Amino acid sequence: LRSKLPHIPTTIFTVMSRLAAECGAINLSQGSPDFEVDQELKDLVNHYVQAGYNQYAPMTGVKALREAIAAKKQRLYGCHLDPDTEITVTNGATEAIFSAISSLVHPGDEVIVFEPAYDNYVPTIRLNGGVVIPLRLKSPDYRIDWDEVRSSLSPSTRMIMINTPHNPSGTSLRPEDMAALQEIVADSNILILSDEVYQHLVYDGRQHESILRYPELYRRAIVTMSFGKTFHATGWRAGYAIAPPEITAEIRKVHQFNTFSINRPLQHALADYLAEPAHYLSLPGFFQRKRDLFLSAMAGTPFEFLDCAGTYFALASYQRISEKGDQEFARWLTREKGVAVIPISSFYTDGTDERIVRFCFAKTDEALLAAAEKLRW
Amino acid sequence: LRSKLPHIPTTIFTVMSRLAAECGAINLSQGSPDFEVDQELKDLVNHYVQAGYNQYAPMTGVKALREAIAAKKQRLYGCHLDPDTEITVTNGATEAIFSAISSLVHPGDEVIVFEPAYDNYVPTIRLNGGVVIPLRLKSPDYRIDWDEVRSSLSPSTRMIMINTPHNPSGTSLRPEDMAALQEIVADSNILILSDEVYQHLVYDGRQHESILRYPELYRRAIVTMSFGKTFHATGWRAGYAIAPPEITAEIRKVHQFNTFSINRPLQHALADYLAEPAHYLSLPGFFQRKRDLFLSAMAGTPFEFLDCAGTYFALASYQRISEKGDQEFARWLTREKGVAVIPISSFYTDGTDERIVRFCFAKTDEALLAAAEKLRW
Ligand SMILES: CSCCC(=O)C(=O)O
Ligand SMILES: CSCCC(=O)C(=O)O
Repeated sequence: LRSKLPHIPTTIFTVMSRLAAECGAINLSQGSPDFEVDQELKDLVNHYVQAGYNQYAPMTGVKALREAIAAKKQRLYGCHLDPDTEITVTNGATEAIFSAISSLVHPGDEVIVFEPAYDNYVPTIRLNGGVVIPLRLKSPDYRIDWDEVRSSLSPSTRMIMINTPHNPSGTSLRPEDMAALQEIVADSNILILSDEVYQHLVYDGRQHESILRYPELYRRAIVTMSFGKTFHATGWRAGYAIAPPEITAEIRKVHQFNTFSINRPLQHALADYLAEPAHYLSLPGFFQRKRDLFLSAMAGTPFEFLDCAGTYFALASYQRISEKGDQEFARWLTREKGVAVIPISSFYTDGTDERIVRFCFAKTDEALLAAAEKLRW
Repeated sequence: LRSKLPHIPTTIFTVMSRLAAECGAINLSQGSPDFEVDQELKDLVNHYVQAGYNQYAPMTGVKALREAIAAKKQRLYGCHLDPDTEITVTNGATEAIFSAISSLVHPGDEVIVFEPAYDNYVPTIRLNGGVVIPLRLKSPDYRIDWDEVRSSLSPSTRMIMINTPHNPSGTSLRPEDMAALQEIVADSNILILSDEVYQHLVYDGRQHESILRYPELYRRAIVTMSFGKTFHATGWRAGYAIAPPEITAEIRKVHQFNTFSINRPLQHALADYLAEPAHYLSLPGFFQRKRDLFLSAMAGTPFEFLDCAGTYFALASYQRISEKGDQEFARWLTREKGVAVIPISSFYTDGTDERIVRFCFAKTDEALLAAAEKLRW
């Protein structure tokens, strides 16, 4: 059997979560909250299941949900989206990214990816015959070097992928980043795929710089977002892609033959639940408290944490503890110390290993404090 | 914007269901049941939502569900499947087909497809750079001409796609078909993708010839199946791919970056529900009664029905009524007579039009009788 992805292993999230389960470790690896979905939202899902909303949703998504998404984006980012031609509901942001890349990247097209990068970007580009141009973000601040982007452009550059707030570093793009990006793509045919699944998880009073705030960027963009991240329901698999009509039409050509549509009762429930802005406006405060609780508990350990301005992940160097590579260290920590983390070399095409691991703090206070306790040396 | 699927329109199911809604027509087009999911299954879903099974399912699917699927297949087809390495839960059979083709068909590979063919096969092959070799099944019996298959083989033949029972004709493969297929692929590297979403919908006491009954075929096969079709829950999006470990490993490389996993509470509910065989063994009787009710009601109309041995679709020629092409006729019937159907020229790469349309009879008795009433000339 000739493989199309010969060097692709099982995703690190599956590997580490499995190992955590086997070892009975506290699982701070996969970005999977261990607290509950709001009771109101659970009851809404049940309402629509019982009321018989159980056959195919429209391929593009339930209309009420697309309308609720458009209203929310207008409120947050001041943009005017047409729910019928610019919003497509997908099986998580993962499917949004996959269907977008599969419909837009032709064989030989170059795609600029900033590393460390979420682990579905690169294989999806390669599966479609695209050429990954990896640009390395440097620790500890993981900011984009726009001059390097400029000098990496070629006539084959088809797409630039950004991710803000950035998984795993939490770095968030600033207005000056958006200006630089705008200047680079002006007068080109370059598309922007902006993965914004952590749009609500920006801390210390900062504002999320969504592509949706910048009409000149949005014209050529696909923005991917996630209900799983926003409503602590990663297991429900609901996300969406926002793009101008011409781009949306292409994404839907793939989406309709890939998943066709997603779970329908869920979509009706989310539409109702989005009507109350408090349901998402409370998130930065909720997670900033988690971050602060976790980081102060971890202060008593030899891990050296990098700044975390967004997402529910925090990076830490373990240089004071071990000389091991990060893959080996993460497994060792899981087995010997009972805390699972993500080795971020999995987020680089060339396996760059700066001996940094990622902790997820979307966990109960008890789990976070217990993990910190286990990691006191 | 250069399209990767320039000639691909919106799927005919979306087009006809939208038109039916606009016209207030009885919708016998898309295969979407209009009766309810069993109360027991709905309550199980709610149980798992309330009990907090709301974060990421394992990428491969919830273990209890994969075990329940394996037990069911052993009971029905006498095969022994390893739930850990041979079963992958997907966003409907649609995603199973998409992820299988995307992981196995390389650019330039030829794939034999029998037409009329379900409308996601051909675009998915082409998106992956595969070459579609369409072989036409001839009305009224739509049987495969295995000599034609033999003479269509080339060194580039990578895959043969079969679909039994066949959508839209209902034709089911027989033991002699399986023997011919086995002889053709023996000593080759050809894979078989067997779409068996209507496995339980085989009538008149016939047996479903699953690939899973034939170890020599299964060795090189991917079998796709659907809970949506089986439990009248097309809107939940739950299906699966069964394949030997080496093939499953490749499919999962794409699945993990495409959708990652599907709705988790649903998977736990389905696992419990599958424990009772009556839940699926009652299906042939249920749908055979629907078929017979519908066909006898339609006997009073000028439509000429072809034999329907399986699926919940029936084909009919409208030659006595109209000279229109089937696309135009289906739209006209929806608007003027208030009954929506599928024009099956959408299931052919070359738009073959034999003036035959497809009726879905997975509908309430009232809807079926009302439709027949509207179609008396
Ligand atoms: C699809 S599992 C990965 C979840 C996630 O976003 C992360 O841990 O980075
Ligand atoms: C994904 S909508 C199509 C449903 C179906 O299987 C059919 O109508 O043939």
